[in-house]
Amino acid sequence: MKLAILFGGASYEHEISIVSAITVKEKLSRFELSFIFCDQDHKFYLIDGTKMKAVTFSRGEHRKMPQIFLTNGGFEQRGLFGSKKHEMPILNLIHGGDGEDGSIASLMDFFHIPFIGPRKEASMLSFDKHYTKWLAASLDVKTLSYEILRKEEKREIATAYPFIVKPARLGSSIGVSIVRDASELDYALDVAFEFDNVLLIEPFINGVKEYNLAGFSARGEITYSIVEEPQKAEFLDFEKKYLDFSRSGNVEAAAVSEALVAQLRESFAKIYLPLFEGALIRCDFFEIDGEVYLNEVNPIPGSMANYLFEDFSAAIHKLLASLPQKKSIRVNYDYIHSISQAKGK
Amino acid sequence: MKLAILFGGASYEHEISIVSAITVKEKLSRFELSFIFCDQDHKFYLIDGTKMKAVTFSRGEHRKMPQIFLTNGGFEQRGLFGSKKHEMPILNLIHGGDGEDGSIASLMDFFHIPFIGPRKEASMLSFDKHYTKWLAASLDVKTLSYEILRKEEKREIATAYPFIVKPARLGSSIGVSIVRDASELDYALDVAFEFDNVLLIEPFINGVKEYNLAGFSARGEITYSIVEEPQKAEFLDFEKKYLDFSRSGNVEAAAVSEALVAQLRESFAKIYLPLFEGALIRCDFFEIDGEVYLNEVNPIPGSMANYLFEDFSAAIHKLLASLPQKKSIRVNYDYIHSISQAKGK
Repeated sequence: MKLAILFGGASYEHEISIVSAITVKEKLSRFELSFIFCDQDHKFYLIDGTKMKAVTFSRGEHRKMPQIFLTNGGFEQRGLFGSKKHEMPILNLIHGGDGEDGSIASLMDFFHIPFIGPRKEASMLSFDKHYTKWLAASLDVKTLSYEILRKEEKREIATAYPFIVKPARLGSSIGVSIVRDASELDYALDVAFEFDNVLLIEPFINGVKEYNLAGFSARGEITYSIVEEPQKAEFLDFEKKYLDFSRSGNVEAAAVSEALVAQLRESFAKIYLPLFEGALIRCDFFEIDGEVYLNEVNPIPGSMANYLFEDFSAAIHKLLASLPQKKSIRVNYDYIHSISQAKGK
Repeated sequence: MKLAILFGGASYEHEISIVSAITVKEKLSRFELSFIFCDQDHKFYLIDGTKMKAVTFSRGEHRKMPQIFLTNGGFEQRGLFGSKKHEMPILNLIHGGDGEDGSIASLMDFFHIPFIGPRKEASMLSFDKHYTKWLAASLDVKTLSYEILRKEEKREIATAYPFIVKPARLGSSIGVSIVRDASELDYALDVAFEFDNVLLIEPFINGVKEYNLAGFSARGEITYSIVEEPQKAEFLDFEKKYLDFSRSGNVEAAAVSEALVAQLRESFAKIYLPLFEGALIRCDFFEIDGEVYLNEVNPIPGSMANYLFEDFSAAIHKLLASLPQKKSIRVNYDYIHSISQAKGK
C-alpha cells in the first residue's frame, strides 16, 4: 500500500517533525513509503528513503533531491522531457505551524489529495488552545479554568500561583513555563510572547494524574490505543519532548480502572466525532477527584503515538481505508442562465 | 496599482462570486486589474478583462483562456518556451466555500501571495455560524440565543415559533427558512440539511431593525462605511441576494442616532480586531430595545460592499497598503546539530 509521509514545514516544530518522520518510517516498513519534505520556504522535495536521517536536512542535502510541486491529485516532478506525477495518500506529519494550523489540510483538500490528518476546521480548533476551550465547553468536556492574556494588555492575572503560561498556538511545550510567584512572572510572559501574541494561563496542579489516549475513527467505530500514564516531569521541556518524538518502543498500559478507561474514552469520542475524522489524534487528560479533564488535543501527535498501538501498521492501514470524502459541489449556472435569458442574450 | 480579482470557486456561491467580480471590476477601474477565475475543479484561468461577463463562464469559454498555476509568490503561466509569472496582490472575492472557509487564505499564505480577505482563522470562525457565536460571546458582543441541530440528532427544538433555520456553514441565505409552526418544520429542516449536517436555529423576530456596517483596519485605525438599513424583506432569498451582489450604486446612510452608530462601530471593532486584519468585512446587526446584536459576519461581502463606501477605490487602495505581514519562522537545526554532535557524527 502506497503512502507518502509529509514532514518539515515552516514551524518551530520543524526539527521534531523530521525526528517524527524518521521514527514513523521504521514503524511503517510494511507500506510502500515515499517521503516528502516541506522546507521552511514551502518548497517540497522527494526524499530518497535511504537518506532519511536528520543530518540530510540540517546539512541541506535535500536540495540535491528532486523538487516536486503540488498539483491536482498529487505532486508533480518536472523534468526536461515532461513531468511525472506522484499520486498516493499523504500522512501529514508536519507538527505545529503549517501542519496543524489548517494550511496543509486546506492544501490537500484543495488539490484533491487524500490524507491522514486533521481537516481544516479540526486543525484550527485544536491548534489554538483558546478555541479548544470553546470546543470542549460546547461538548461538555471538562477542562481547567483559564484566562487569556494578550500582548497589548496589562499584565494582570487573576489565577492564583502557581500557574502555567502557554502560548495559545504552539505545541511541544515551546514557550511554556510554570510561574510560582510574582518574581517569575515577567520572564515567563516575555518568553511566551516571543512565540505568540495570545497566552493561555491555567492553574498548575502539582502532582496531578495525567493520562494520554490516542485513537481514530474508521468504518464507523473508534479504535482506541492503550491508556498511557506519561513520564512524570513537571512538564516536558522542548528537549525532552524532542526525544519523546522519536519514541518507537511500545509502552505499558497504565494501571487504571476500567471505569476510568471508559471515562477517558467517552471524553475522547466527544472531542473526536465528527470533527477529527481522518486523523489519528492523541488527547492528553488530567484526572482530578475521579473526574476527567481534557488538557490538550494533539491532532498530529509526535511519531503518530505509534508506541501506544499494539499494531501501528494495521491501525494506519485501517484509517487509510476509511478517510472521509469531501462533498463535491457541482456548479450548474442556473441563475446566470435564467438571467441571461431574461435579458434576451 | 496592480490587483488581481480572484473569483469563482467550488461553492454554492460560485455564480454570485462571478456577479460580484463583474461589479467590483467597474468600481475599481483606477487599478491595473487582472482577473483570476477558479473553476469548480480548482483550475485557475487568467481571464481577459473584456470577457468579464457572466456568460463567459456559464458557456465554459474561460477554458480557452490561459490556465495558470499557484507557485511561490504568485501564479505561473506555463508555455512552450518557459513560464511567465504573474505577481500581484489578490482580492479574494470567492464567496462561501473555498473563499470564506479558510482554503484560499491558507493557499495565499502558503504560497506567500499578499491578499485582501480574511486570514484562515478569521475565515473559519466566521464561516461557521456556530463558531461565530463562540467568538462573539468571548468578546462580549451580543447575539440572539440559538441552538444547534445535527443531522443525526432527533428533531427536537426548544426555541419557540417562529424561528429561523440556517445551515451552519453557508452564506447568501442558501437553505435558510423561517418556520412559523410545526407543520413547516420538517420541510425547512430537510432543505437546510441538504447543505450542511449542522444547523443553527434562532428566534425569528418580526420587524426587527437591521443595520449593516462595513469596514477595515489600515494604518492602525478602522475605516468605517456608512450604516445601511438594508431593504426590508423577511430575509433575502437566494435570487434577491444574487441581485444584491451586483449592487454598485451608492446607498443612503440610515437615519440613525449618533449613539447607535457609535454602538454599531464599537461592536464592529470588537469583532474585527485583530482577527480580521487584512479583510474588508461587513457586519450585519439587529437593534433590539436600544441594544445592538451581531447577526452575521460577512468576511467577503457581496461586491465587497462597495456601495457603502463613498470612495471605494480609495478604500481598497488604503487597505492594500496596510496588509498584515505573516511572521516568518526561520529554522536553525540547533537540536539536530547538538544531537548529531553528541552522537559524534
